[in-house]
Amino acid sequence: MSTSPFTAPLFTDIDSLRTLCREPASSDAVAINQIAEREATLTKPAGSLGRLEELTSWLGAWQRRSTPQLERVQTIIFAGNHGVAAQGVSAWPSDVTALMVQNFHNGGAAINQLSRYADTTLTIETLEDLRPTEDFTQTPAMDEEIFLRTLTRGYNAVSPDTDLLCLGEMGIGNTTPAAALSAALFGGDGKEWAGRGAGNDDAAMARKISAIDRALDLHRASLADPLQVARRLGGHELAAIMGAVIAARIHGIPVLLDGFVCTAAVAPLHILHAEGLAHCRISHCSAETGHTRLAAHLKQKPLLDFDLRLGEASGATLAVPLLRAALACHTGMHTFAEAGIAG
Amino acid sequence: MSTSPFTAPLFTDIDSLRTLCREPASSDAVAINQIAEREATLTKPAGSLGRLEELTSWLGAWQRRSTPQLERVQTIIFAGNHGVAAQGVSAWPSDVTALMVQNFHNGGAAINQLSRYADTTLTIETLEDLRPTEDFTQTPAMDEEIFLRTLTRGYNAVSPDTDLLCLGEMGIGNTTPAAALSAALFGGDGKEWAGRGAGNDDAAMARKISAIDRALDLHRASLADPLQVARRLGGHELAAIMGAVIAARIHGIPVLLDGFVCTAAVAPLHILHAEGLAHCRISHCSAETGHTRLAAHLKQKPLLDFDLRLGEASGATLAVPLLRAALACHTGMHTFAEAGIAG
Repeated sequence: MSTSPFTAPLFTDIDSLRTLCREPASSDAVAINQIAEREATLTKPAGSLGRLEELTSWLGAWQRRSTPQLERVQTIIFAGNHGVAAQGVSAWPSDVTALMVQNFHNGGAAINQLSRYADTTLTIETLEDLRPTEDFTQTPAMDEEIFLRTLTRGYNAVSPDTDLLCLGEMGIGNTTPAAALSAALFGGDGKEWAGRGAGNDDAAMARKISAIDRALDLHRASLADPLQVARRLGGHELAAIMGAVIAARIHGIPVLLDGFVCTAAVAPLHILHAEGLAHCRISHCSAETGHTRLAAHLKQKPLLDFDLRLGEASGATLAVPLLRAALACHTGMHTFAEAGIAG
Repeated sequence: MSTSPFTAPLFTDIDSLRTLCREPASSDAVAINQIAEREATLTKPAGSLGRLEELTSWLGAWQRRSTPQLERVQTIIFAGNHGVAAQGVSAWPSDVTALMVQNFHNGGAAINQLSRYADTTLTIETLEDLRPTEDFTQTPAMDEEIFLRTLTRGYNAVSPDTDLLCLGEMGIGNTTPAAALSAALFGGDGKEWAGRGAGNDDAAMARKISAIDRALDLHRASLADPLQVARRLGGHELAAIMGAVIAARIHGIPVLLDGFVCTAAVAPLHILHAEGLAHCRISHCSAETGHTRLAAHLKQKPLLDFDLRLGEASGATLAVPLLRAALACHTGMHTFAEAGIAG
């Protein structure tokens, strides 16, 4: 289905990755028009299904199908650990990342229930054997090799034939790189972007804010390049999420992003290309500080506002039935002509 | 399951109806506590599933079950016509109500697709053979007999053994009574509460605002009584929706309300008793002017904000999978002890 010349990852260096991210990727105007034409004939006042109509059009545009479908939906959780956790920025110890990955494999986490309910295929990708990144208050979180390797892991984790991709993450401490990344890309400091994560007290909050501000100072000279921001202030699972979103753009797969960490991870793509995230929707507005502001910078209105702050692709997967319901209306409704009503 | 002494409708006169609406109805504190106790043991940071946790608790509280369930979900659409439509307040002629009812029976409307997708039982209730109410710019919309009869129809349409009730309506012109009712209950005039309905142009909007203002003037002396407001400024399907919500309160059935008309129809119950709508949630924030303000008066935050303005219980039924997902998490997740994680 791809119309892009890029069918395999070319992530050998950051410069060629940047070139790839700046390539235009077009949605399917024919599909958009055909969907709009059918929508106008259905037995309802024009536009009265609101966002459901917009979502149908978006799915078709990026699937490049005039009859969009949601047979195969993939949920991927990328898991990683963070050097900056040593600064005491989280309420939980880093070994909880591995325990939660085990919980995913055992079927005990929220995402297992949500994925089963929404009928998505759940993929767990553990990055760098959960070895932590470097502490970015001291040095870049990743060298170029590791950054490109984890990004490629993300790219390759996407099933090219999936109809929709739900992305999420697990990584103790990872709202700290997410806040640092947001501040580096959109301005502001630790105080503005840091939130309570998975339950920080005031002391941990102070350490988190300090870590972010020190990292911004240390890496200041390199923050004009969004990919250097991702490498220096990000994390393994954040890089992998970016790789998966690049893959989805090339394969023609619409993406539901999860909360703050997931959205921050792909924000560099928006800086590199105004349409770099046009195939993505933010599934929900996280309760984590900063997500509302980040969504506004990306010019997106999240689908749900349920005060979730779990990660694990929980919000993304929760939203899947809403998209299926949108398609059910679009494909199943009768037209005014069929119903004998003068539209 | 009911703990109320009222097991059959006593809708012989408005005074006894008012007494019934002012009776306390208590949710199940034992169920609420048991649900909270289990929630605290599940493998996630406390509170991180946000509104999903709140919804699970609410379902259990009103089902009076510590393990809430959503096996049997009923969607009811009440259909009626409106005398005030003769004032040119709608973009559509009144005979479209009957055509849409036929469309519901033929399976062609949005609600048919949404109900099938969400696995709800769809009930269509056509009131007074679609004879219109009186034009409330001239006289009360209903006399007491018709008001109580349509309210009783609504009461009796509810399956006492349903786990969740989704309510909606169909009635050309019915955003006019909804706006009139809202203005009468919460203050303001036609200009403040009238919206474009199913597609009004400016001329129809002017007629709609005028009709509401004239009705408020005509009935001014009787607007202190919320039930007289419902009788004089409401409609058949609005009265039936109120009856259904009273039945749900007595039978221990949580309710998802649909948009502006559905919410306005039950607003009198909130005035009559502070907890009169505690067993109800507003499923979505309609694009129709006034719904946001009405929800605020009822101290509710709608579950979805999808710019829907269709009615037909479409928003209520769309939200059902979100509730099922909430229960899937609550019942299926492993505890910290089971996962070997120190909570």
